[in-house]
Amino acid sequence: MEQPRVLTLLSDFGLSDCYVGVMKGAIAQVNPSLTVIDLTHQIPPQNIALARFALMTAYPYFPAGTVHVAVVDPGVGGTRRAIALAIGENATQPSGFLVGPDNGLFSGIFTTHPVIAAVELTKTQYWRSSTPSATFHGRDIFAPVGAHLASGVPLLQVGQPIQPETLVSLDVPQCLMEDVSATDQPRYKITGCVQAIDHFGNLITNISGAHVWHTDWSLSVNGETVPGRKTYGDRPPGDLLALVGSHGWVEIAVNGGSAQAKLCPNRENDFRVVVETSGRQQT
Amino acid sequence: MEQPRVLTLLSDFGLSDCYVGVMKGAIAQVNPSLTVIDLTHQIPPQNIALARFALMTAYPYFPAGTVHVAVVDPGVGGTRRAIALAIGENATQPSGFLVGPDNGLFSGIFTTHPVIAAVELTKTQYWRSSTPSATFHGRDIFAPVGAHLASGVPLLQVGQPIQPETLVSLDVPQCLMEDVSATDQPRYKITGCVQAIDHFGNLITNISGAHVWHTDWSLSVNGETVPGRKTYGDRPPGDLLALVGSHGWVEIAVNGGSAQAKLCPNRENDFRVVVETSGRQQT
Amino acid sequence: MEQPRVLTLLSDFGLSDCYVGVMKGAIAQVNPSLTVIDLTHQIPPQNIALARFALMTAYPYFPAGTVHVAVVDPGVGGTRRAIALAIGENATQPSGFLVGPDNGLFSGIFTTHPVIAAVELTKTQYWRSSTPSATFHGRDIFAPVGAHLASGVPLLQVGQPIQPETLVSLDVPQCLMEDVSATDQPRYKITGCVQAIDHFGNLITNISGAHVWHTDWSLSVNGETVPGRKTYGDRPPGDLLALVGSHGWVEIAVNGGSAQAKLCPNRENDFRVVVETSGRQQT
Repeated sequence: MEQPRVLTLLSDFGLSDCYVGVMKGAIAQVNPSLTVIDLTHQIPPQNIALARFALMTAYPYFPAGTVHVAVVDPGVGGTRRAIALAIGENATQPSGFLVGPDNGLFSGIFTTHPVIAAVELTKTQYWRSSTPSATFHGRDIFAPVGAHLASGVPLLQVGQPIQPETLVSLDVPQCLMEDVSATDQPRYKITGCVQAIDHFGNLITNISGAHVWHTDWSLSVNGETVPGRKTYGDRPPGDLLALVGSHGWVEIAVNGGSAQAKLCPNRENDFRVVVETSGRQQT
Repeated sequence: MEQPRVLTLLSDFGLSDCYVGVMKGAIAQVNPSLTVIDLTHQIPPQNIALARFALMTAYPYFPAGTVHVAVVDPGVGGTRRAIALAIGENATQPSGFLVGPDNGLFSGIFTTHPVIAAVELTKTQYWRSSTPSATFHGRDIFAPVGAHLASGVPLLQVGQPIQPETLVSLDVPQCLMEDVSATDQPRYKITGCVQAIDHFGNLITNISGAHVWHTDWSLSVNGETVPGRKTYGDRPPGDLLALVGSHGWVEIAVNGGSAQAKLCPNRENDFRVVVETSGRQQT
Repeated sequence: MEQPRVLTLLSDFGLSDCYVGVMKGAIAQVNPSLTVIDLTHQIPPQNIALARFALMTAYPYFPAGTVHVAVVDPGVGGTRRAIALAIGENATQPSGFLVGPDNGLFSGIFTTHPVIAAVELTKTQYWRSSTPSATFHGRDIFAPVGAHLASGVPLLQVGQPIQPETLVSLDVPQCLMEDVSATDQPRYKITGCVQAIDHFGNLITNISGAHVWHTDWSLSVNGETVPGRKTYGDRPPGDLLALVGSHGWVEIAVNGGSAQAKLCPNRENDFRVVVETSGRQQT
């Protein structure tokens, strides 16, 4: 038997209203057999940057061909384009499809996964109605188009091709890497920032874990020096540590507690984070 | 292959306990192939009025034959009836089925969708157990009966017919419409209230969008005059606007912000809302 | 057609990040046809005791053979074992399977359901990758192994057998039962505590409802005497009552309100609860 196709949803709709349920109703009207997975619906309202981070970190963990519908859409009903994209290395077997507004939501995924093809959603026969509401394209356009793509409709059938170079991109601060090696002793200093804080209060930096694997390293943040470790239990309960988080970024944590509570950041990106490595540096 | 049938769940159970998961377990014990969709489980405890609003606005967006199980049930274990209903224009092809307590939860749906047939749930062979708990009919009666209906058991098999006229109805304030037309200039004044506030802080009135389509219109609330527009971006960021929301009601919003925060309502229905239209009035 | 198998998830991940969605992606990579049900993801961070309570109370309500994956795992990446268990009375037809860290999470289920077999997860071919992250075994080990078990892989294939007696057990306070019978008048006094507080503010004790069925009974907590009743509506709105909750434990509730708010407990287990029964005592 053919495997059901997977469609994920991400939004800033929260779970207290029926907006998410209604998007799933619109999907079921197209195809009730799809496997629908919520990434999260608790992106802070209109926070495209955090939605971009969430999509970028979740993308690699889904089956090939998964359709990701994302709706953080402050420009709904205005001039921003509605888009669908095929992503991956192999043009005949996309690793995934993306559907949503062209506002930079998906631009984190592009940093590591090329765009195979992009369309602007113009074919109203794949919408819930040819006269969509002005405020809820998630229900009226994105969810139905996503459901059609997940049901096997080809990308080029749901819209007009557009150039991938014209897609809106949301830039995040780059981290700065300096070679501070002494003779026979390779050392690097990487300066970055906090790009997200998770539910556990872990501070997730924009510094890739690839910079610190197989080295001795430490990190300084907010005047404190924090040792680089492998996992939470490598430090006594209540103590700060730095580690490579499960999404591959350097993160600052507290064993059995919350780094956010301990370092009291009132908002993200408040902190300059400096990693120093010594010993053999993985390339 | 036959399409899987859809069953939705709405409750005031929240998501911190396992009550919702356990209802889904009871459904899976009947039929693990159903497509189960959460409308919301964050109805404020015992708030039948908000549950009524949520069900009424979500109902049109599901496939024909969807079963909606709703459990906001302060009278559980008492004398209120447990009911199931078939809804729609066509007696042989219901647009949907409703299962839950007879306390007015479903009465918003009735305002626009007729009841085809109604039963009181008396056939214990469709319950989880013939001796249900006194406090959790969602798990013991409503979810299993809903799963049986979604699996094809006819409505009249799960209970004793009752007269639709006897169903409990929850009335909401009606809005008042006045014709204030001048010669050659049709004008209407509609006075209503706020019936719900959503996650974004949008104030959703009880005034139908049908009254303002194709007209110039404005709204006054709390001493402020708010212009009627098509979508959020039609006003500068941070400014109030009125529009027809995605559920079809006139709503008060802030572009990129929260009307609730701006107008500081401490609770719903605090506000008298007056819409004034001019120009051609759609009938 | 064969029924899809059910897999449940419980964690302390919350719903604001994509951790839960990513676990479901890892499951879909193994088998997108499974019926995946969330028990809850709002266990307070690292609170193994509440996770144990939630699993124990939810377990009986799922189809035979359901796989429960639970991830409240403060020791992730350390020395605690990763385990999978088969549970039930019948060795050839387990009532369920459990997958997660060996930290006592599942020990509430053992109090009433025997362990048929236990393995330590050592077969990396059933993991997402043979080099899992140090901090997210939910995604890298538990979810994939659970998906394989739910897809029919035998328990003994996913790891090395271990003795059930070696599993970590988390003990909760036992309640104390005293026979205070007078001639011809059986009476019992049971002293216990509050083991959990739910979303409605109901205080759930560690006293089994079996002790009070078919008797007249009352309860004292925090200096107040509370009458034992059958359901919420058996007392006037706003009044305290005690009843046997839907999970089978004696619980303290307020009709139409919150016992937690009324009795102001700042945290769980603050209260000594004493039940007194009279009349015929069920055995």
